[in-house]
Amino acid sequence: MSKTIRVTVWNEGVHEKTHPEVAKVYPDGIHGAIGGFLKEQGFDVRTATLDEPEHGLTDEVLDETDVLTWWGHMAHHRVSDEIVSKVQQRVLAGMGLIVLHSGHFSKIFQKLMGTTCNLKWREAGENERLWVVDPGHPIVEGVGPYIDIEHEEMYGEQFDIPAPDELVLISWFKGGEVFRSGCTWTRGKGKVFYFRPGHETFPTYFHPQVQKIITNAVRWAKPVDRPAVEFGHSQPLELIEGWKQQ
Amino acid sequence: MSKTIRVTVWNEGVHEKTHPEVAKVYPDGIHGAIGGFLKEQGFDVRTATLDEPEHGLTDEVLDETDVLTWWGHMAHHRVSDEIVSKVQQRVLAGMGLIVLHSGHFSKIFQKLMGTTCNLKWREAGENERLWVVDPGHPIVEGVGPYIDIEHEEMYGEQFDIPAPDELVLISWFKGGEVFRSGCTWTRGKGKVFYFRPGHETFPTYFHPQVQKIITNAVRWAKPVDRPAVEFGHSQPLELIEGWKQQ
Amino acid sequence: MSKTIRVTVWNEGVHEKTHPEVAKVYPDGIHGAIGGFLKEQGFDVRTATLDEPEHGLTDEVLDETDVLTWWGHMAHHRVSDEIVSKVQQRVLAGMGLIVLHSGHFSKIFQKLMGTTCNLKWREAGENERLWVVDPGHPIVEGVGPYIDIEHEEMYGEQFDIPAPDELVLISWFKGGEVFRSGCTWTRGKGKVFYFRPGHETFPTYFHPQVQKIITNAVRWAKPVDRPAVEFGHSQPLELIEGWKQQ
Amino acid sequence: MSKTIRVTVWNEGVHEKTHPEVAKVYPDGIHGAIGGFLKEQGFDVRTATLDEPEHGLTDEVLDETDVLTWWGHMAHHRVSDEIVSKVQQRVLAGMGLIVLHSGHFSKIFQKLMGTTCNLKWREAGENERLWVVDPGHPIVEGVGPYIDIEHEEMYGEQFDIPAPDELVLISWFKGGEVFRSGCTWTRGKGKVFYFRPGHETFPTYFHPQVQKIITNAVRWAKPVDRPAVEFGHSQPLELIEGWKQQ
Repeated sequence: MSKTIRVTVWNEGVHEKTHPEVAKVYPDGIHGAIGGFLKEQGFDVRTATLDEPEHGLTDEVLDETDVLTWWGHMAHHRVSDEIVSKVQQRVLAGMGLIVLHSGHFSKIFQKLMGTTCNLKWREAGENERLWVVDPGHPIVEGVGPYIDIEHEEMYGEQFDIPAPDELVLISWFKGGEVFRSGCTWTRGKGKVFYFRPGHETFPTYFHPQVQKIITNAVRWAKPVDRPAVEFGHSQPLELIEGWKQQ
Repeated sequence: MSKTIRVTVWNEGVHEKTHPEVAKVYPDGIHGAIGGFLKEQGFDVRTATLDEPEHGLTDEVLDETDVLTWWGHMAHHRVSDEIVSKVQQRVLAGMGLIVLHSGHFSKIFQKLMGTTCNLKWREAGENERLWVVDPGHPIVEGVGPYIDIEHEEMYGEQFDIPAPDELVLISWFKGGEVFRSGCTWTRGKGKVFYFRPGHETFPTYFHPQVQKIITNAVRWAKPVDRPAVEFGHSQPLELIEGWKQQ
Repeated sequence: MSKTIRVTVWNEGVHEKTHPEVAKVYPDGIHGAIGGFLKEQGFDVRTATLDEPEHGLTDEVLDETDVLTWWGHMAHHRVSDEIVSKVQQRVLAGMGLIVLHSGHFSKIFQKLMGTTCNLKWREAGENERLWVVDPGHPIVEGVGPYIDIEHEEMYGEQFDIPAPDELVLISWFKGGEVFRSGCTWTRGKGKVFYFRPGHETFPTYFHPQVQKIITNAVRWAKPVDRPAVEFGHSQPLELIEGWKQQ
Repeated sequence: MSKTIRVTVWNEGVHEKTHPEVAKVYPDGIHGAIGGFLKEQGFDVRTATLDEPEHGLTDEVLDETDVLTWWGHMAHHRVSDEIVSKVQQRVLAGMGLIVLHSGHFSKIFQKLMGTTCNLKWREAGENERLWVVDPGHPIVEGVGPYIDIEHEEMYGEQFDIPAPDELVLISWFKGGEVFRSGCTWTRGKGKVFYFRPGHETFPTYFHPQVQKIITNAVRWAKPVDRPAVEFGHSQPLELIEGWKQQ
């Protein structure tokens, strides 16, 4: 119950190498920034990136992962289908998954949602304001009525996702759009949280309230301790006339 | 609004050819039975089966399909991935989809759900009783408090699906299990209904209340008339300082 | 099925008598404006107002009402608790209810929601843009990606409602807020739709897309034809050892 | 975060005084039994009953209550409307509420749901089996695929509640019915859990898995730490032409 939660922070890690303006904002990579504040919260944190063998997501790593966070953007297509299927199975078996910003187009998110996860977007560095609409949700513990982010990329509706199980945050953008910015779903035994902000050219992951949300989401998404679900052929639990055990 | 709804009834159509006891119950195939009562309701009905070119789901057929019903069991793996992707795109664009019984394991249902869609099962010919739990839903128009089916295959929970947007029916089985038997989801602009009963060795599709549910579901799942959703790069609708049109 | 839907348009009808600027916008009352466009759609429409005996909602009127629309603002407290309870019972028995704008604070809406239904507000005549977020919902049939209303009162989150069963529209306001503007719930056999716009000093109910939404909502909210739900003491449907009928 | 959760166990406490067969099963009252196992879990527990002044729910008690559990049956009508309103306000402000068994007909549950909360019932001492249908929910942590209770009162659908935000458990009854037995809702900042079993003549609250569910539900329902929600008149956060602060 009070065991330390083990988090694996996954990052594509390409922008940081190819775009100096991104490296300037995130000198340790986006994974470095996210892993950093999660460590400070006392979680057991490791990072993994696209270019590592098996993208850093070996069976051994996944065996020791309670919650996986996912940031990707320009190299979604380079993530192996095999790894994606493995991660999907882990989520269904209980591993939490937190999908960040442009991760909306990652294979793993699309696979778990069953939709394109497409949206409208614009890079105008405009102001984003995320309003809390589910004020009793543990993911917004310690957060005010809204979060202001001075400069962000715009994502606008229609966001092609299944209706979230819980809608926690809605974004307002100066340019005239709205967006469902904090959404939860359950898939199998696993909890999934999508959190919108986090464009690579802005220091969004250093924003204290953004860090608070991701920290809360890790706690919320940790697996519950239950036996694996059994499927398949099943004996009756009550007497059925004429039934012979098979 | 009052246009005739165009239904394509898809059936794997294998059991009927290989199992005489199935052919005896469904001499015109399961698609024949389902197509038959839908025609009587005034829908514009065609059927399609696995062995036809493109499984009978050519672009021309899909262009003229408002709602697709899907029955499959022993040959899910023989359905081409390309056709499945095409059907998924159609659903997201608004085509209704009604997944029947063992269709829970079809590629198209798994793809839209993002889960295994696994469950417990047993063939003991036991009694199933489907209780209405959403009494104002249009899918149960004209149906009593429950539907009794004398002999059916058992499907039991855990049913590995995303929590349905609407849970309409829950089944009771004599052997001791329950099952979420009538579930709706929206994916993109398309409506999806899963309806549990319909084992190939029982005359379930001749049951008047089962026919009523499927008929209602076709009406409920028909597309709404709206412009295609636009995604991608987007100009601001309000003034943003310094923005130059791109 | 194709029976004409009978709509009762309820309006408090006080502003129109006491505020000349409202009477100027709505010379036939807000109920006159709403009733007018609904009649043009072929519905069987009557109106009812606060000052009529039983607020115009006698048993005879309710017996002949499939869908009730509700607009109120300054006189919510003058609506009799007895009538409110009667309307609640009708909704649970299947009557549709469409709650408009400041009706968020009506006794009937609060009673069906179980919350305060409170919100933030401001009268600055600012621009409202309602974005469709459930693009396949019948309530947005024929509507574009968003609806622009040039001048409206602002309502902002937190909106103290239960999470809607379906969230159809989200509003953007120039002053920086968002709002869940089109929400559905089911209560008993009855469907409830809350639709935000409609301040008394703006000609919102003459806006073609606003009229389209309300028209669609009436169709969506019409009762389904099913037997009354039975409650209370219940004989077993299966054999229970030792049970004697009671 | 790791503060001890303060639970108030409310019980009508009438059956235990008037029905010797109930007193025999629950010699310390139903509240004694529930309070007992919650204390063993390390919660800070107090009890309150109908016959105490203000039913034991004074402002001082409610100020020190994180989660309230509620059992009542034959004396719902004796609970004061004023206390019910006070408890409702506390729930909206964040206090968790766990409604047990015949508490489905309590004023507080009806008030928060907006429906009759009616159902079918039968006392045949029949077997109940509660199936987990949301296997990753924290309320079923440590619980197997189902819970068997040898003798219980039957509650059957239609259960007249709003569709739960999360459906966690569904009951099977030997006599042929099903029931949504573990349901969650959010109202304001407060979490509500309804849990079906617990008839006064059966030792249900001594069942280890029933105790596990209630224990988990207390943890799940504890308030989040956030500022009180602000409502009412609101200044714009962005520039609106011509706006003067009011």
